[in-house]
Amino acid sequence: MNSHIYQPAALKPGTLRVIPLGGVGEIGRNMTVYELDGKLLIVDCGVLFPEEHQPGVDLILPDFTPIRDRLDDVLGVVLTHGHEDHIGAVPYLLRLRQDIPLIGSNLTLALIEAKLKEHRISPYTLTVKEGQTEQFGPFELEFVAVNHSIPDALAVAIKTSAGVVLHTGDFKMDQLPLDDRITDLRAFARLGEAGVDLFLPDSTNADVPGFTAPERGIGPVLEGIIAKAPRRVIVASFSSHVHRVQQVLDAAHANGRRVAFLGRSMVRNMGIAAELGYLKVPEGVLVDFKKAGDIPDDKIVYMSTGSQGEPMAVLSRMANLEHKIEVGKGDTVILASSLIPGNENAVYRVINGLIKLGANVVHKGNAKVHVSGHASAGELLYCYNILRPKNVLPVHGEYRHLVANADLAVQTGVPEENTFIVENGAVIDLRDGEVAIVGQLDIGFVYVDGSTVGEITDADLKDRRILAEEGFISIFAAVDAQTGRVIVGPEIQARGFAEDEAVFDAVKPLIVRALAEAAENGTRDSHAFSQVIRRTVGRWVNTQHRRRPMIVPVVIEA
Amino acid sequence: MNSHIYQPAALKPGTLRVIPLGGVGEIGRNMTVYELDGKLLIVDCGVLFPEEHQPGVDLILPDFTPIRDRLDDVLGVVLTHGHEDHIGAVPYLLRLRQDIPLIGSNLTLALIEAKLKEHRISPYTLTVKEGQTEQFGPFELEFVAVNHSIPDALAVAIKTSAGVVLHTGDFKMDQLPLDDRITDLRAFARLGEAGVDLFLPDSTNADVPGFTAPERGIGPVLEGIIAKAPRRVIVASFSSHVHRVQQVLDAAHANGRRVAFLGRSMVRNMGIAAELGYLKVPEGVLVDFKKAGDIPDDKIVYMSTGSQGEPMAVLSRMANLEHKIEVGKGDTVILASSLIPGNENAVYRVINGLIKLGANVVHKGNAKVHVSGHASAGELLYCYNILRPKNVLPVHGEYRHLVANADLAVQTGVPEENTFIVENGAVIDLRDGEVAIVGQLDIGFVYVDGSTVGEITDADLKDRRILAEEGFISIFAAVDAQTGRVIVGPEIQARGFAEDEAVFDAVKPLIVRALAEAAENGTRDSHAFSQVIRRTVGRWVNTQHRRRPMIVPVVIEA
Repeated sequence: MNSHIYQPAALKPGTLRVIPLGGVGEIGRNMTVYELDGKLLIVDCGVLFPEEHQPGVDLILPDFTPIRDRLDDVLGVVLTHGHEDHIGAVPYLLRLRQDIPLIGSNLTLALIEAKLKEHRISPYTLTVKEGQTEQFGPFELEFVAVNHSIPDALAVAIKTSAGVVLHTGDFKMDQLPLDDRITDLRAFARLGEAGVDLFLPDSTNADVPGFTAPERGIGPVLEGIIAKAPRRVIVASFSSHVHRVQQVLDAAHANGRRVAFLGRSMVRNMGIAAELGYLKVPEGVLVDFKKAGDIPDDKIVYMSTGSQGEPMAVLSRMANLEHKIEVGKGDTVILASSLIPGNENAVYRVINGLIKLGANVVHKGNAKVHVSGHASAGELLYCYNILRPKNVLPVHGEYRHLVANADLAVQTGVPEENTFIVENGAVIDLRDGEVAIVGQLDIGFVYVDGSTVGEITDADLKDRRILAEEGFISIFAAVDAQTGRVIVGPEIQARGFAEDEAVFDAVKPLIVRALAEAAENGTRDSHAFSQVIRRTVGRWVNTQHRRRPMIVPVVIEA
Repeated sequence: MNSHIYQPAALKPGTLRVIPLGGVGEIGRNMTVYELDGKLLIVDCGVLFPEEHQPGVDLILPDFTPIRDRLDDVLGVVLTHGHEDHIGAVPYLLRLRQDIPLIGSNLTLALIEAKLKEHRISPYTLTVKEGQTEQFGPFELEFVAVNHSIPDALAVAIKTSAGVVLHTGDFKMDQLPLDDRITDLRAFARLGEAGVDLFLPDSTNADVPGFTAPERGIGPVLEGIIAKAPRRVIVASFSSHVHRVQQVLDAAHANGRRVAFLGRSMVRNMGIAAELGYLKVPEGVLVDFKKAGDIPDDKIVYMSTGSQGEPMAVLSRMANLEHKIEVGKGDTVILASSLIPGNENAVYRVINGLIKLGANVVHKGNAKVHVSGHASAGELLYCYNILRPKNVLPVHGEYRHLVANADLAVQTGVPEENTFIVENGAVIDLRDGEVAIVGQLDIGFVYVDGSTVGEITDADLKDRRILAEEGFISIFAAVDAQTGRVIVGPEIQARGFAEDEAVFDAVKPLIVRALAEAAENGTRDSHAFSQVIRRTVGRWVNTQHRRRPMIVPVVIEA
């Protein structure tokens, strides 16, 4: 996958080594390993969601190979916030060593602990908060409040004898966030004045000009929509977006409506958020889904998952009339969410289905019901100017985002040669404020499929794509190795190719003849006979049907 | 697929029947059949491009079933403009009856004739232009100029004894188009004053507020980008977008650059457009691709296809360094195109690849290099107010677009009960200005795959999706029908499942045992033995791997 693989020289004492194992060149599976004096510190350990060219894959993990033999040296995993792309791979890491300490804020740890419980893992944790400083071996960590689309997110400054690193995690700079917990630019200023040698900033929105709009602007829009809604209101959003849900609760409350949570992750996460005080539930507003049916249609709001068109989630099932709530004329559905690239067709299918049932569907295409959780270019400029980092390693983005982010750094005065656009597996050394790329490890994709981890390979996915595009034809024959005579068969099965199997009657005599000819020409072993069948059927199907299905011959010598 | 299928009563003389065979509830395969007094007139005959849940499908055609036995009654096919979703299925219709006359504008017919030539069909054609009137049996056709993202587009008024229909085709209302050929609102006004009983308007952008920006605004942006480009410029757009290409030619010319066309369809279509005078090529600006390499990098613009990330098109191949033009630092790539939903990941992969090679990539996300070809809500309001149709049947859109368009009609005073949101195959009768839905035919998807048309079924596509998600396991066994003893096999093959076939050693004895037990319990025939294998392997793979691959047993009685 990676270009120019080369091993770094052994790490010298007093040099800090940084290796991103995921999240660079992609949005997801964020994970960065820091090494100093034989000890490792990990920041984030998330999952990546598959694209359409990775069919059947449930999740993609960072490649743990470079640290697999070093797990005893890991001092801890800092989790910057509770999103799946930052915490989702933790269960798979802890399967390798259960007692790696997890370090994070109150909410972040509560969310990962709930997830680990499902994996029957009870982790060692250290709860930290903004302003706090902790020493882990050679790493002194200072945690800094940042604002994001989930509460209690932290950046982490890593202070070492080799230099100071600031790793932002995901963040934006909403100046009037719902919880008044802003990205702490005073701390950025202080760190910057003391000197930040290497800055690893979130790049997601680096190519978006201007400023991300404030979350607070969504509340009045929701309130207005709910006020005018004649019947039920169903709001779909991400199940971790506590502030978005807060605004739905408040808007419902202001309109004298009650709210029922729908979807397993929504119920679970909001339970945690409410218990820890991050979600402030107005007295008496919540109602259990089971009792929501008793409430008049114009007095209820359902808060659900499924805003990305996920086929099994609540909203898709509603659109297909496969959910207990039968959406109908007069109902209002609000998708208070982003539209993640690749999900468009699925989301539009859900929207069309809901409109067909008579619902009024509101989404970010026709109302201001969503803002991003990431800093746009304008915010990043503030950030660079306050921090003035010596070196910049943009993370958390596709290539185009990383380049845009580095370009912003350069515009604020960071020398171009001090910005580093790298790939996952790059080995970056820091010493005396000097940064150098000293190696490139071979980093792969680790696919989770069902209960298997890492068993599905890129070759399997290639096979799956061929099967999806063309289907397959399997041909069984028991062959007399001496004469090439077909004793049993040829028995042909096909799937995804054509319904009518009589279509294969035409190729069977061709196979029989080809095998006999091959035997005449000296072919004797079953592998060679298989190849003869593959060629014969391949040529026939290409000529007759202009198609290239997978051809799977099975020959047994009889 | 369709709901509430019911056959219409036989059509009475003097009643006009309208049946959309495609394009309603989807963007693509536009085709509408008009019937009066035993004669048929067809408007458009396009293709639909497949989505990700239709893997391997090349094209989707309208379902010709309702007219298959009536082809001799077809008086002609009016083609409103030369886009694939309006003309692409013509070759498949003409395969059924070659001498159906095609009626359209100069450019539209030139484009379909070039396409038919590849299918070795030489059609009967009638060239028409705006203002012209033609009588086809009971149908009097008046053609009206409309403005769209391809030149020479026409709306068609169908005047009959049963009433007057206006079918817009695709259109927008750019008031200062490049060719000064505006949508003829004077004709709309005149038709409206005389009385339009049924209006079939383009719905694509009905849910987009405001007005579509003028095409003319793109020229100066292109000129500015090209002026600043230090090296080569590569512009990608649709190969039928003559005015976009015109602006690229002009911008290149203004900057003293020459232009080479890239991609088979770009070369072909622009050849036709230039020959017919729709594309005005500044003297000496064009250069053959083969000679473009001799021109200095800062004096050349390549105009190419591939703006949707199509893997085999020029732009994708450039991004993968599989094209003769090796994109590098200093090159500028402009995607002067829309981003069709579902193509996002493919397009972003191309953009990331080009940026990685060092190119500066400009697209509609970061510059005003594209405007839509369809009328937004504001324009449609003008249209309704000028026309004042009695009844409205929104076409050319997904369900959400049709509903939005009907809503605009109602806002301008069309009674809600006179707006009709239907599905493909709806049978709509018009008589004395009264419209009624009188039937719903069962309309399917006709898939083109390779050289096959209509052979791939929805069941095959379901199989393909399962194969893509999970792969398959095929098990061959020759079984003694009396004892259930496995004489040959079980021989197991799998694809898309796991690389290591040793994994199946565990299930083989289970199969042997299950077959013997089945025989003991009286099972004798090979179909029943197959079911035993399917169950055994299915249960094993689900328990051991939490996976559900397709299981394909082949049992031969020995």
